[in-house]
Amino acid sequence: MIRPAELIERKRDGGELTAQELEELMLGYARDEVPDYQLAAFCMAVFFRGLTSAETYSLAEAMIKTRDTDDLRSALGRKVVDKHSTGGVGDKTSIAIGPIVAACGVPFAKMSGRGLGHTGGTLDKLESIPGFRVELSTDEFVAQVREAGMAIIGASTNLVPADKRLYALRDVTATVDSYSLIAASIMSKKIAGGAEAIVIDAKVGDGAFMKSLPDAQELAEAMLDLGRRAGLEVVCLLTDMDQPLGRAVGNALEIREAIATLRGEGPPDFVELVLSACSHLLAVSDLGVDDAEGRRRAEQAIADGSAFEAYERWIRAQGGDPDEAALPQASVVRELSADRGGYVAELGAVRVGQAALHLGAGRRAKEDEIDHTVGVVCLAKRGDRVAAGEPLAEIHAQTEEAAAEAARELAAAYELADEPPRERPVVLDVLA
Amino acid sequence: MIRPAELIERKRDGGELTAQELEELMLGYARDEVPDYQLAAFCMAVFFRGLTSAETYSLAEAMIKTRDTDDLRSALGRKVVDKHSTGGVGDKTSIAIGPIVAACGVPFAKMSGRGLGHTGGTLDKLESIPGFRVELSTDEFVAQVREAGMAIIGASTNLVPADKRLYALRDVTATVDSYSLIAASIMSKKIAGGAEAIVIDAKVGDGAFMKSLPDAQELAEAMLDLGRRAGLEVVCLLTDMDQPLGRAVGNALEIREAIATLRGEGPPDFVELVLSACSHLLAVSDLGVDDAEGRRRAEQAIADGSAFEAYERWIRAQGGDPDEAALPQASVVRELSADRGGYVAELGAVRVGQAALHLGAGRRAKEDEIDHTVGVVCLAKRGDRVAAGEPLAEIHAQTEEAAAEAARELAAAYELADEPPRERPVVLDVLA
Repeated sequence: MIRPAELIERKRDGGELTAQELEELMLGYARDEVPDYQLAAFCMAVFFRGLTSAETYSLAEAMIKTRDTDDLRSALGRKVVDKHSTGGVGDKTSIAIGPIVAACGVPFAKMSGRGLGHTGGTLDKLESIPGFRVELSTDEFVAQVREAGMAIIGASTNLVPADKRLYALRDVTATVDSYSLIAASIMSKKIAGGAEAIVIDAKVGDGAFMKSLPDAQELAEAMLDLGRRAGLEVVCLLTDMDQPLGRAVGNALEIREAIATLRGEGPPDFVELVLSACSHLLAVSDLGVDDAEGRRRAEQAIADGSAFEAYERWIRAQGGDPDEAALPQASVVRELSADRGGYVAELGAVRVGQAALHLGAGRRAKEDEIDHTVGVVCLAKRGDRVAAGEPLAEIHAQTEEAAAEAARELAAAYELADEPPRERPVVLDVLA
Repeated sequence: MIRPAELIERKRDGGELTAQELEELMLGYARDEVPDYQLAAFCMAVFFRGLTSAETYSLAEAMIKTRDTDDLRSALGRKVVDKHSTGGVGDKTSIAIGPIVAACGVPFAKMSGRGLGHTGGTLDKLESIPGFRVELSTDEFVAQVREAGMAIIGASTNLVPADKRLYALRDVTATVDSYSLIAASIMSKKIAGGAEAIVIDAKVGDGAFMKSLPDAQELAEAMLDLGRRAGLEVVCLLTDMDQPLGRAVGNALEIREAIATLRGEGPPDFVELVLSACSHLLAVSDLGVDDAEGRRRAEQAIADGSAFEAYERWIRAQGGDPDEAALPQASVVRELSADRGGYVAELGAVRVGQAALHLGAGRRAKEDEIDHTVGVVCLAKRGDRVAAGEPLAEIHAQTEEAAAEAARELAAAYELADEPPRERPVVLDVLA
């Protein structure tokens, strides 16, 4: 017999729960035998006390037991590799990585989500592309990965029902920000989806959930540990989110930047992150290469055009028009100019994300509609030297008023200084 | 517009909520606009972060706004004084205090609760008395206090609906043990009930929620502060609960001990606590005496028999038979003997409470039935000297097996030593 209040109390007081107790708690929750309010109190106790690595694994395992769909990806008959980002501003990484990896002969079958707040969602970005369908049947999904080499679709609502339900509860009870719960949530979905190896892009900085490198290392360790216990290869990149990733923030604008990157014309920080993630993805795939060779092949796929061809094949397979000219455009485009000369010392990711959100590129509440055309292009990034009057950023808006408001917000995001800032690489650390 | 998740997050991160925010949260909860799971997460955040004294007061005030019954006690037309105990093993204090205070001319009108776990409830103890009714109508309650000088009845379910509902939620989410929430809960009921002055008996030790004096002082300070803000006189006694209070633990057994005390034959520690509480109750009443004079009058009421007469009047008024011989008796009474000579160094309150609980004197779950006859009488208490083979305790049970099992549990509660333990008074501190 499960006594949830006793389990909550033990966790509250810093004790450890057994695998069986956590399973009873989660399965009881999934079966409506344990009410939301007990899970809410439990999650808040976990926020303060954390979970041991054994507990985190047990929680993920318990959540996986609630899945009621088949493992789509294992139907491919290949080793399944996956990639996950903890989310940030301007993060269009999957959209560039998928075609590169596919061009190198590794199937890329990903389920993705929508955005909320100042961080965008891959599905929202893809829906900028006229005709693109994010909902595929299981058979369509598997067939497309076989034929076109890749697919990105909406996460099945029932992949891990307990995780979905718990996430919704955490969202309204201020218990999202727990390393243990984040790790268990991510990994339960990846394992349930059939992944055998996974590259995690853990964002660190102003625009990320994890503000400092030690925080990100803590989450990374939780994930690596979960991977070890689940027999899953995990590589964790800790990457900079003090400034937006790349230049573009906003849905269609980010698709353009992904296309530019696949054509070899991407912004340096984004290109570096994409190549780094691809090199590790290829290294954990069944190609049998190391990450240096993986990086070489990824660079080659961009250089010889095969990555962009893979992009076109993919977008067409999902009903979309891969032509960049088909992407929708905002009616008002304005520039923000530097009011002084100097180096960009800081470019606050949250402020840029908020400016894009207020322009209409994101959702403040789940039911909000997105405007795919609007957003920001950061022409100058950290370390760049600008003269007074030179453009810092381009604002894509629906109205002049919205553009003016965004310009004020963006101006506050830029900090100019006489000296160049200390260099900070986009990939801060790699843990495996 | 209230955003409960933001309030939860702020408290989680150690911030402070305004009076208006706490009122919106509690009234929203009372109106079913804020769900249980958000309050559960909030209470767990409060468990870890605490509430400031301003927040505790705001929470109590907000809960009071949900009351939907009249203030019964103010109908008496006298200054209303009240007494509250945080609960312990063998705590029959109200049953002895009420008649003494009433005999001194101060009306004693109390609403009380039932017990759960190893601590008993005053209502359960009173129901040992044949015929005693704990449910009175408002009119009966007020009329009885006027005519018989006192009444103790079951707490009205709707005195403070938000508190009642929140307490039930805290009970199943391991969030009972929070000083701030305890203080707000106690004080909201006392204020809503019309109390103008209150004596709090805060138990400290093994058998109490508060295990150490600093913990109890923290709760006492929270209550004193709430009282100050609410314009309520508060006196807080910090009293020993390392060993059971008095000798008797078990419902009818405790009534016998209360009667003995009113006749001047009570055990020393219980008599001391009763006299101390009475002296402070009389001092905050409208009699206009100080606590030294209050104590003298309380001693006099016991000595001249008026306290016992007040007891008889009260019990008869509530339909009960005040004759001690009418109390039910257990079929099996056995003694536990000392297996060595020496001083009682420790007498663990929780172990004694658990032994009584297992005999059937208390409830493990809310729906359990109570056996009013069973329990334990601790013949030897801390500091007493016993010879080998002398009786330590008397066990009142339904069966020989239950008595034998209780004897094993009780033996573990007694610790005998060659040297007498350091003296520890029953009243450890008085804060006002």
